[in-house]
Amino acid sequence: MSTDLQFDANGNLRHLITLEGLGRERINALLDRAVALRTAFADGARGPQLLAGRTIINLFFETSTRTRSSFELAARRLGASVLNFDIASSSTNKGESLEDTLATLEAMQADAFIVRHRENGTPARLAACARRAAILNAGDGNHAHPTQGLLDALTIRDHHADFSPLKVVICGDIRHSRVARSDVHVLSALGVREIRLCGPTALMPKADDFPQCVLVDEFDAAIAGCDVVIMLRLQRERMIEALIGDEAEYFSRFGLTAQRLRQAGPDALVMHPGPMNRGVEIASDVADGWQSVILDQVANGIPARMAVLASLLGPDRAMPQASAAAASIP
Amino acid sequence: MSTDLQFDANGNLRHLITLEGLGRERINALLDRAVALRTAFADGARGPQLLAGRTIINLFFETSTRTRSSFELAARRLGASVLNFDIASSSTNKGESLEDTLATLEAMQADAFIVRHRENGTPARLAACARRAAILNAGDGNHAHPTQGLLDALTIRDHHADFSPLKVVICGDIRHSRVARSDVHVLSALGVREIRLCGPTALMPKADDFPQCVLVDEFDAAIAGCDVVIMLRLQRERMIEALIGDEAEYFSRFGLTAQRLRQAGPDALVMHPGPMNRGVEIASDVADGWQSVILDQVANGIPARMAVLASLLGPDRAMPQASAAAASIP
Amino acid sequence: MSTDLQFDANGNLRHLITLEGLGRERINALLDRAVALRTAFADGARGPQLLAGRTIINLFFETSTRTRSSFELAARRLGASVLNFDIASSSTNKGESLEDTLATLEAMQADAFIVRHRENGTPARLAACARRAAILNAGDGNHAHPTQGLLDALTIRDHHADFSPLKVVICGDIRHSRVARSDVHVLSALGVREIRLCGPTALMPKADDFPQCVLVDEFDAAIAGCDVVIMLRLQRERMIEALIGDEAEYFSRFGLTAQRLRQAGPDALVMHPGPMNRGVEIASDVADGWQSVILDQVANGIPARMAVLASLLGPDRAMPQASAAAASIP
Repeated sequence: MSTDLQFDANGNLRHLITLEGLGRERINALLDRAVALRTAFADGARGPQLLAGRTIINLFFETSTRTRSSFELAARRLGASVLNFDIASSSTNKGESLEDTLATLEAMQADAFIVRHRENGTPARLAACARRAAILNAGDGNHAHPTQGLLDALTIRDHHADFSPLKVVICGDIRHSRVARSDVHVLSALGVREIRLCGPTALMPKADDFPQCVLVDEFDAAIAGCDVVIMLRLQRERMIEALIGDEAEYFSRFGLTAQRLRQAGPDALVMHPGPMNRGVEIASDVADGWQSVILDQVANGIPARMAVLASLLGPDRAMPQASAAAASIP
Repeated sequence: MSTDLQFDANGNLRHLITLEGLGRERINALLDRAVALRTAFADGARGPQLLAGRTIINLFFETSTRTRSSFELAARRLGASVLNFDIASSSTNKGESLEDTLATLEAMQADAFIVRHRENGTPARLAACARRAAILNAGDGNHAHPTQGLLDALTIRDHHADFSPLKVVICGDIRHSRVARSDVHVLSALGVREIRLCGPTALMPKADDFPQCVLVDEFDAAIAGCDVVIMLRLQRERMIEALIGDEAEYFSRFGLTAQRLRQAGPDALVMHPGPMNRGVEIASDVADGWQSVILDQVANGIPARMAVLASLLGPDRAMPQASAAAASIP
Repeated sequence: MSTDLQFDANGNLRHLITLEGLGRERINALLDRAVALRTAFADGARGPQLLAGRTIINLFFETSTRTRSSFELAARRLGASVLNFDIASSSTNKGESLEDTLATLEAMQADAFIVRHRENGTPARLAACARRAAILNAGDGNHAHPTQGLLDALTIRDHHADFSPLKVVICGDIRHSRVARSDVHVLSALGVREIRLCGPTALMPKADDFPQCVLVDEFDAAIAGCDVVIMLRLQRERMIEALIGDEAEYFSRFGLTAQRLRQAGPDALVMHPGPMNRGVEIASDVADGWQSVILDQVANGIPARMAVLASLLGPDRAMPQASAAAASIP
C-alpha cells in the first residue's frame, strides 16, 4: 500500500493512514504540537478554536469506546462539529458503495472522516477517492492505528526525552495487532535502540513482517532490561482458534506480573492500549501500579488527536513544510 | 389529508408536511432563502445563527443516513441544539403512544421535530397534536418527502431560471415513491411544461394518482427531449414482489445508460435522490458523468433544509405573510 | 449502602446517588436553585453558562428516553459538552470492568457521569472509585432515582409552599419502583404529613422497607382526602409473574379514574413519572385532565437536573457549605 497517498503535492500531510514513512521530523512536529495543545487546554481551559466551522464525521464500522470518544472530544475541544455515523443503520446496508457514501457526506461539506474498519486498507481506499476531505485512520484490520502509535510515543516521551537508548518489548497477539504495527513504525522512526516482540508461536508475525524487530519466544527473556513494556490485549476468541491454551496458561507464560516486571529496567513503563483483560495479559496490581502509564496513554490520546486534526484541518494546513506547522503551535 | 394543517391562522407555514398546496410564491420564497443561506454559509463560514437557543429533535422511525445528517447539519449551522432520538430504544417500545412521546419531548422545550416514519400520515398526525413545536416531515411512507422536493427544485433552478419550458421525466418505482410525489408537487407548482412518469407496470401509480402527469411505458419514449431526468432508487425487495424480472432485465429496460441519455435534451440534467444502485437503475458512467447533478442535490439539501428551519423557527416566524419572510433573508 | 459516599470531607455534595440522608435544608437549596435556573432559562433564553468547558458523559446501561434527553438538555443549556455512550457497543462487552471503563473515560477529562443501570448500587460502586468526576444516579434497579424525586418535589412545591399538611398516596408497583423510594425520601425530608402506599399484594414492599409510610390495600381507602396522587407505571411483564390478573382487572382495582379521583382532596394533583400505560394504571381523561401535572413534571426535570449539575460541577462547587451554594443562585 502506497504511503504517498497521505501527502499532497507539496509534501504536506493530507490524510493520516499510517505512521510508516512519515519520518522522524514530521512525527516530532506532531508530538510537539500535541504537547502545546495539552498545555493550552489543561484543566478544561478553552484553547484555540482551530477547527471552528469544521465538520468531522465519525465513520466507525467497528464498535469502539475509547477511540471514538477520544476523537470526538479532541475535535469538539478545537471547536469542530462532530457527527456520529451509525453504520449499522446506514445506507451501506442499502447496497450503496462505500465510495458513494463518502462522496455523499463530502457533498454536505464534511471536512474530515475518522474511519475504523475491520478490513485492512479501507481508510486508504477512501483517501484515494476523497475529493477534499481528510481521512484519518482510527484502526483498520491488523494494518495500522496511527493515532495510537502517536499517543504511545507521546506517553514515552513524557518520561524519556531521548529515545535512542530505549529498549522496548511488545508482548501478546502481535500477528493480529494494528497497535503493534503502528508502535513499531513510530518507535523505529524515533530511533529506539531495540524493539522485541514476544507472544505465543501461533500469534507471532511472519519472519519478514517486522524486519526491524527482534522476535523472542520467552517473555522472561524478552522483558529483561527493557525500559518500556507494552502489553497487548488478547482477544479471547483467538485462544481456541490458535490453540494457545486457556487463560490461566496464557497468563502464566505471557501475563505481566510484578515478579516478571522486576526483570525489566528499574523504572520501566507499563503500557496497554486497552481495554484490558486483567488476569489474562496483565496482573491487576501491575495495571494499577506506580510503573503503569495506562491512564496517561488515554489522557494523551486527546492532545495527540487534536494535533493530527489541527495539522490536517487547521488554518495553517496550506503551509509548504510539515515541520513549519509546528512553528505555529498550538 | 388536509394541507391546512400546515398553516397557522395568519396563513403562515407552521409545519412542513407536504409541498402540495404550498403554492408557487411560497415555494419560491423558500428557494430564494435557501440560495441566500447557501451564500452566507459558503466555505464553512459562520452565517447568521437564526436558531440560537432552539432545540430540534430528530425523530427517525426509519433509518436514514443522508436525510438525518443533512437536517442535523442544517440545524447546527443555524445555531440550534440537535438531539437524536434513538427510536429502537425509546419509550414507544414501552407501550407509550406516539402522541405522549411527542408531548413529553415538547414539555422539555423542544422547538421542532424532524420526523421520518414508514406509515403515511404520521407527521400529519403529530402536527395535529403538537402544542407549540413545528413538525417537519422527513419522509412518510409513499406520501411525501417535501425537503427532497425543495432541494430537487433548487438544483434544477441553479440551471434553469425559468421552469415553464422544461420537460421532466421521473423513472422507476413511482408507485412507492414519496420522492416522486413531492417532486411532482413542487415541479407542478413551479409550472414545468410536462412531467412524464415511467416504470414497470407493476410499479406504476394508479391512473388518477398523478392527474397532472403523462404516464409512459417505454423509457426510450419517455426520455426523448427531456431537460431533466430523475431516476428513482429501486428497492430490490420489490423486484420479486412485483415480478419485474431480475436486475439485468430491469437495467436493460429502465436503467439510465449513456446511450439512452443521448435521447434526452442536449444538456439534460441527471438526478437521483440516492442511495444509488449502480448498474440497476443507473449506469456508473452516467452517475459520474458531466450531466449528473446528483452530488449537487446532496449539497443543496443543507441550504434547502436551513431555509425551511429558518422559516418555521427563525426570529421572523411571526410575520403575517409567508412571502414577507423572504424579504428578511437570509 | 453508605450515603456518606455522596459528600466530600467538607460535607459538600460530591455525587448524587440517593436523596436518603440529604436533609431538608440541602434539598430546599437544590429546589431553590432549580426555580432560579428555570426563570433564567425561560422561553429558550440563554442563561448562565455555569458548565462551560465541562464534559458530561451519559452512561446508560438501560434504555431511556425522557431521563437521558432531560439530562442532556439540562447539561447543554448550562454550556457543557455531552457525550452519549452507547453501552451495547462499548468495551464493557469486551470483558473490561465497569471500573476500568470509568477510569478510562475520566482520563479523557470527563467531569461527570450520568449513570443508569438495572442493578442496585452500580452508581454507588462507581462513585466509590471515581477519582475526580461526579456520579449522578439516573436510576438504579429499584434502589433510587434521585432526580425524579427532586422534580416531583419541585412540581408539588409549585402548588404547595408548605408540605407539612400534605397527604400523598403512591399507587402501583411499589416493590420494584425506584421512583417510589426516591419520592418517599424527598417527601419525608420535606415533612409531608402522611404517605400512603397502595398496590396489589404481590407488588407491595416488605413491611419494614418503608417505615415512615402507611400501607393500604384498597386504592379507594388510600386515595381518600389525599392532596397528591402519584401513579406508578405498571411493567406489564410483572403481571404474569406476580399473578395480579389482566390489565382490565388491574385497572378496575388500581387504575386512577375520574370517579376515584373525586375521593381525593378537591384540588389533588395527579402525577405519573411516565411513560404511561393509558387504560392500565390511569384513565386517559385523568391523564389529560385539569388536575394532571404530568407534563409539568417533565418540564421541571430540566431545571431540577440543571440545579444538581450546577451544584456538583459549577464554579461554586468548592464552597464549604452546601446551603451556601444556593446563595449564589442561579
